[in-house]
Amino acid sequence: MKTLNVDLGDRSYPIYIGQHLLTQTALLTPYIVGKQVLIVTNETVAPLYLDTLLTTLSAYKSNTVVLKDGEQYKSLVTLNQIFDAALSNKLNRQLTIIALGGGVIGDMAGFAASCYQRGVNFIQIPTTLLAQVDSSVGGKTAVNHPLGKNMIGAFYQPRCVLADTSTLDTLPERELSAGIAEVIKYGVIRDAIFFEWLESNIEALLARDHQALAYAVEVSCRNKAEIVEQDEHERGMRALLNLGHTFGHAIEAACGYGVWLHGEAVAAGMCMAAELSNRLGWLPEQDMQRIIDLIARAKLPIKPPNSMTVAQFTELMAVDKKVEDGKIRLVLLKALGHALTTADFDGVIFERYLSDSCAV
Amino acid sequence: MKTLNVDLGDRSYPIYIGQHLLTQTALLTPYIVGKQVLIVTNETVAPLYLDTLLTTLSAYKSNTVVLKDGEQYKSLVTLNQIFDAALSNKLNRQLTIIALGGGVIGDMAGFAASCYQRGVNFIQIPTTLLAQVDSSVGGKTAVNHPLGKNMIGAFYQPRCVLADTSTLDTLPERELSAGIAEVIKYGVIRDAIFFEWLESNIEALLARDHQALAYAVEVSCRNKAEIVEQDEHERGMRALLNLGHTFGHAIEAACGYGVWLHGEAVAAGMCMAAELSNRLGWLPEQDMQRIIDLIARAKLPIKPPNSMTVAQFTELMAVDKKVEDGKIRLVLLKALGHALTTADFDGVIFERYLSDSCAV
Repeated sequence: MKTLNVDLGDRSYPIYIGQHLLTQTALLTPYIVGKQVLIVTNETVAPLYLDTLLTTLSAYKSNTVVLKDGEQYKSLVTLNQIFDAALSNKLNRQLTIIALGGGVIGDMAGFAASCYQRGVNFIQIPTTLLAQVDSSVGGKTAVNHPLGKNMIGAFYQPRCVLADTSTLDTLPERELSAGIAEVIKYGVIRDAIFFEWLESNIEALLARDHQALAYAVEVSCRNKAEIVEQDEHERGMRALLNLGHTFGHAIEAACGYGVWLHGEAVAAGMCMAAELSNRLGWLPEQDMQRIIDLIARAKLPIKPPNSMTVAQFTELMAVDKKVEDGKIRLVLLKALGHALTTADFDGVIFERYLSDSCAV
Repeated sequence: MKTLNVDLGDRSYPIYIGQHLLTQTALLTPYIVGKQVLIVTNETVAPLYLDTLLTTLSAYKSNTVVLKDGEQYKSLVTLNQIFDAALSNKLNRQLTIIALGGGVIGDMAGFAASCYQRGVNFIQIPTTLLAQVDSSVGGKTAVNHPLGKNMIGAFYQPRCVLADTSTLDTLPERELSAGIAEVIKYGVIRDAIFFEWLESNIEALLARDHQALAYAVEVSCRNKAEIVEQDEHERGMRALLNLGHTFGHAIEAACGYGVWLHGEAVAAGMCMAAELSNRLGWLPEQDMQRIIDLIARAKLPIKPPNSMTVAQFTELMAVDKKVEDGKIRLVLLKALGHALTTADFDGVIFERYLSDSCAV
């Protein structure tokens, strides 16, 4: 087992990475304050891992809420089911909420923990690659609104993150690839050496080689922790983690949440950011091609859906959280391993790029 | 004009108290970060003060959302109307949300500000006595859940509070009294000298004597600020501010939110806390009687509604945020001006007191 630490003063916490951690009671108990636990999970994950976790936590009074599976359920309405479960079981401020699932479950359980009785204890147990390498670390929680993704949420750090890589054995192939998209992202924005490692090991990851997966989770979490430690509330460099996300969020919203997986939309978004950066004269052709090639080898989309229009991109990107005073801010690339956030790019080239990328 | 400061490190903010502050642009501008403003108000307050505030803020791009008036609308569903308004107007992270109204508006606008795009700028302009002396100060924000009051929320401080006492001229009598309940509370829990002043000036307050009102708002805010500065997240002494609230929340929930005003329920709850404290042998008879007499003179209820049962109290108090490990914690009184929070009281006396207070 590897232990990484996210250093945030009195909100610091450990990330445990390894196989078969879900059965290790001693890893969790230091982070459960009272006697009450509410496990938030979904219909896909519950049959696989809920009983194991309940056994691990048999010393506690555990309640469970099982939500529907999918980004389309990441809403205020579903969030309220967590509050219903907590209140109908009379769970109080000493409650610990545990997220058992992927990014959607982690985001909703974390947001619920941040506002139930104005804040209760929270633990992340991510069971997808995407959640293990990205969403479970750093304290971003949220639900979607029909007009925009992750528009309602909070910064709320977990007390610990338990990334049991054994749970990746049951992950559908499409979700494995979606997680790899966020892994590739760290290489592209700030870790060219890791990007090279990925170029050599992408097939091992797709084949679920345990050592390769554990290494990818560890390096990803270390990159994420370093960024979050320096900029917890995204006032600056943390925004680099949004590479591909402004395009990606527009894709997710336009197709309807859940049609494209978040990681798939981010993958296409990263290719778009690379292509636009190249058009702007910033990113060398060869670097752009390496990014697109690796994403393609990970069995991820490298283009937005055919159905998407320029108008949809323009409209949906305009409500993105990265907009400031009417100018869209994008994460763009100067080189492989070197990203920047900027609103200072040629709008004409941007619009021409969008219309070249869309059929309509 | 009086200025008080709430000292919370980098979250410190001023409270401005005085007449005709709503027209003073210069008081607000230092606290509006971008160009976008979203004013959250209700159907009662909008016709009275919205145009004035819009004129004051004419240099900004102001949007408005007008909610229905009443505690029964303090819900996740109504909260979402604020998000709808913000997103349909493409308001971004540089937004400032301004609450213009009473406690319900302040609590909802503040909670919306805490979670819209994970947190935007927030200003309180309380227009009821209750909001000016209590709910607009200290950063508690929330919405209700059918199973409990203020169960979903956040600690989120405003950038400034503008308490324009002129707005109290239009306040219905019943709401004026409801606000006085929270004013009396400060005297009862920690300020016996202020309690004596209230005994001498209660008629002046009811007659809306401007000097008396301004003084009551100032002393109340100073008491509240002192408590919040020492215990922002209610880990200890801040809980004293909940005198009468555990009983009161049960009354509000049992009658249906909005039937009893919050201040009315708190008034009856304070009398219950005083009576129980007396039964426990803690509060002298004479102090109890002074509290009940002053509350009655303020035209407030001194007993719970006839319809309420012991079972309702027991059930609804059990989900209160002040419950710890199954024991109800109550704010009780040792003397006039001396309150304490405790779960260490005789349960038999408590149950006998409840059954004596309820018809069923």
